[in-house]
Amino acid sequence: MDGKPTINLGLEGIYFMESKICKVDGKAGKLYYYGYDIEALAARSNFEETSYLLLHGELPNVKQLADFSRALSEERNLDDKIIDMIKSVPKETNPMHTLSAAMDLIGAYDKNAEKTADNESTSIRIISKIASVVAAIGSIRATSQYTHPDPKLSHTANFLYMLNGEPKPKEVVKLADTMFLLHAEHSSNASTFSGIVTISTLSDIYSAVVSAINTLKGPLHGGADEAALKMITGGIGKDPDKYIDGIISSGNRIMGFGHRVYKTYDPRAVIIKEQLKAAIGDSDSRVKEIAETAFGIEEATIKRTGQKGIWPNVDFFSGPVYSYVGIEPELFTPVFALSRAPGWCSHIMEYLKDNRLIRPTVYYTGETGRPYKEINSR
Amino acid sequence: MDGKPTINLGLEGIYFMESKICKVDGKAGKLYYYGYDIEALAARSNFEETSYLLLHGELPNVKQLADFSRALSEERNLDDKIIDMIKSVPKETNPMHTLSAAMDLIGAYDKNAEKTADNESTSIRIISKIASVVAAIGSIRATSQYTHPDPKLSHTANFLYMLNGEPKPKEVVKLADTMFLLHAEHSSNASTFSGIVTISTLSDIYSAVVSAINTLKGPLHGGADEAALKMITGGIGKDPDKYIDGIISSGNRIMGFGHRVYKTYDPRAVIIKEQLKAAIGDSDSRVKEIAETAFGIEEATIKRTGQKGIWPNVDFFSGPVYSYVGIEPELFTPVFALSRAPGWCSHIMEYLKDNRLIRPTVYYTGETGRPYKEINSR
Repeated sequence: MDGKPTINLGLEGIYFMESKICKVDGKAGKLYYYGYDIEALAARSNFEETSYLLLHGELPNVKQLADFSRALSEERNLDDKIIDMIKSVPKETNPMHTLSAAMDLIGAYDKNAEKTADNESTSIRIISKIASVVAAIGSIRATSQYTHPDPKLSHTANFLYMLNGEPKPKEVVKLADTMFLLHAEHSSNASTFSGIVTISTLSDIYSAVVSAINTLKGPLHGGADEAALKMITGGIGKDPDKYIDGIISSGNRIMGFGHRVYKTYDPRAVIIKEQLKAAIGDSDSRVKEIAETAFGIEEATIKRTGQKGIWPNVDFFSGPVYSYVGIEPELFTPVFALSRAPGWCSHIMEYLKDNRLIRPTVYYTGETGRPYKEINSR
Repeated sequence: MDGKPTINLGLEGIYFMESKICKVDGKAGKLYYYGYDIEALAARSNFEETSYLLLHGELPNVKQLADFSRALSEERNLDDKIIDMIKSVPKETNPMHTLSAAMDLIGAYDKNAEKTADNESTSIRIISKIASVVAAIGSIRATSQYTHPDPKLSHTANFLYMLNGEPKPKEVVKLADTMFLLHAEHSSNASTFSGIVTISTLSDIYSAVVSAINTLKGPLHGGADEAALKMITGGIGKDPDKYIDGIISSGNRIMGFGHRVYKTYDPRAVIIKEQLKAAIGDSDSRVKEIAETAFGIEEATIKRTGQKGIWPNVDFFSGPVYSYVGIEPELFTPVFALSRAPGWCSHIMEYLKDNRLIRPTVYYTGETGRPYKEINSR
């Protein structure tokens, strides 16, 4: 036999394709979507335009954006069967299971699901409907009611309207929209990669997105923002320095700090922190309390960890932002999914341009030729 | 910048873990499940016992197998909501979408889905229910009727009973059972790998199996058996040598021949060919015609390709076998899924023992710092 080969645990550092979609520059603390830096997009673009960019590789002109926004808006409706299914699911169900089942069913009812020539339309349908499904899940869990979409609202405004049964103020919509944009894409993370593995067999976009949803569901991927919010609210009314020292000395991790790639302040966290600071002036006392506790914990933590390259990541501020927007913690991962949908579709379509079946190898360390004994002799 | 790294297309030849589950020896034409060769298992074991082996790494004793078979049998029922959902799906839907949605919903309704300590029970539930779902899909497509499971039958006998609304003769059950056993596991193919990627975020077993189903759906993975059957039936009544020469000279592939790993006769094809030969004596003339055409095409093809290492693989005989068993071509990939479920669960549980988030890398070839222009200037 040959010698033991290199085992690449987690496939870390292994390149499997070239891509033009996203650059995460962890040393410089920079993030680019199709070459545009995230600061410019967050300040001057919006989720709809950025979704167009991710599907096409170029920013749209006026007509292209109008057509795209109309297409998104026209796909917002959910079939009654989908709504009934969401209503039928027990409240204890992890909402990511419900989301996955709903997207699967939408694929099953979509007669165009298998038409790969029409992948852009399918992607628009998915980006639109996944937001409606998440809103429906949140609304039905909270009030048992489903609110029909409003075609006149923007993608994000409509999501919040369907989630809450009433429109949200402009500044709330703006902050949510920025969050969705900041989460729209982040290179080949585990969920995106699982979508690529699925499409590599020439399955269809729904199938690939369903795989991505099921992968995002895991606490090692989605879920860090919920844990960070719990840590933040645990620090309300406490001295931040003492609180953080307590967490460190008890050997626990400070949630929302440190990142596999960024060794600087996560550029998305910089953006969202500033927007949150600007927004909370008018908000209610509970939201202010959460945000101000977060800022205190942030400062106390950086004093202790900044020199080691451990800085806040986007998950640290997600909880405070979603508290301001009015999104419950159990919906954080589904909201991550609706935000990431354009990135998933972008990678899936890029992979299809030069498709190759993905099939890495396991190194076999078991036996061969074990003698089969009859059951009575075992 | 650094030089361009190696891009491992398809992750071919890249090892990502050690595993004791399955050895595919492509040079010797041998296949082992947990060290037992496939010939011994096919001749002396059955799908239920082999499923136990795949979940535990050891063959069961009498009591263990009885408990396992009882557990499988007790999980066969489908909730009315699942049956209604299957009935609600349009006939044009790819049945793999329906299967995925059903397994997702079963996960959503399962209050134990998130209890990872109970992964073995969840695996048994999945192996049992996926067969009921596939039978329900087939039966509802064919007759709009659902047949409730019979707890007294074996796993495979019950599947055929639910699919057809009546029990099948012992020899038919036996051949189907062997097919399920031969398809139960085949190392880290794309569907198994996608299940591993999903579980690597510490998602749950349902989620991982749903990813695997969506990946199996692609024609580069499941689906070869359906294409091979089409080629075989196209050769009915024709001279096999001339038929194969025609296919070769027109530049088309001979479906069901050649394999990425096996450079010999696929050991599973050897087994199933012999069992098919022995079984067709009593079958109807159409099944005989298909099987005999397959044997003729096989002989004619090997004469031309055997020296190049292109031999029949298991997909070549699947169509004739399923014709004998009474399974329609559109159900071949769903049947592959129910057969592979023990292998998926086996790999998912093995990966969880020493879990590591899977996240390979893309090599960025795009731009950075593209100037953001206002929409009116684009």
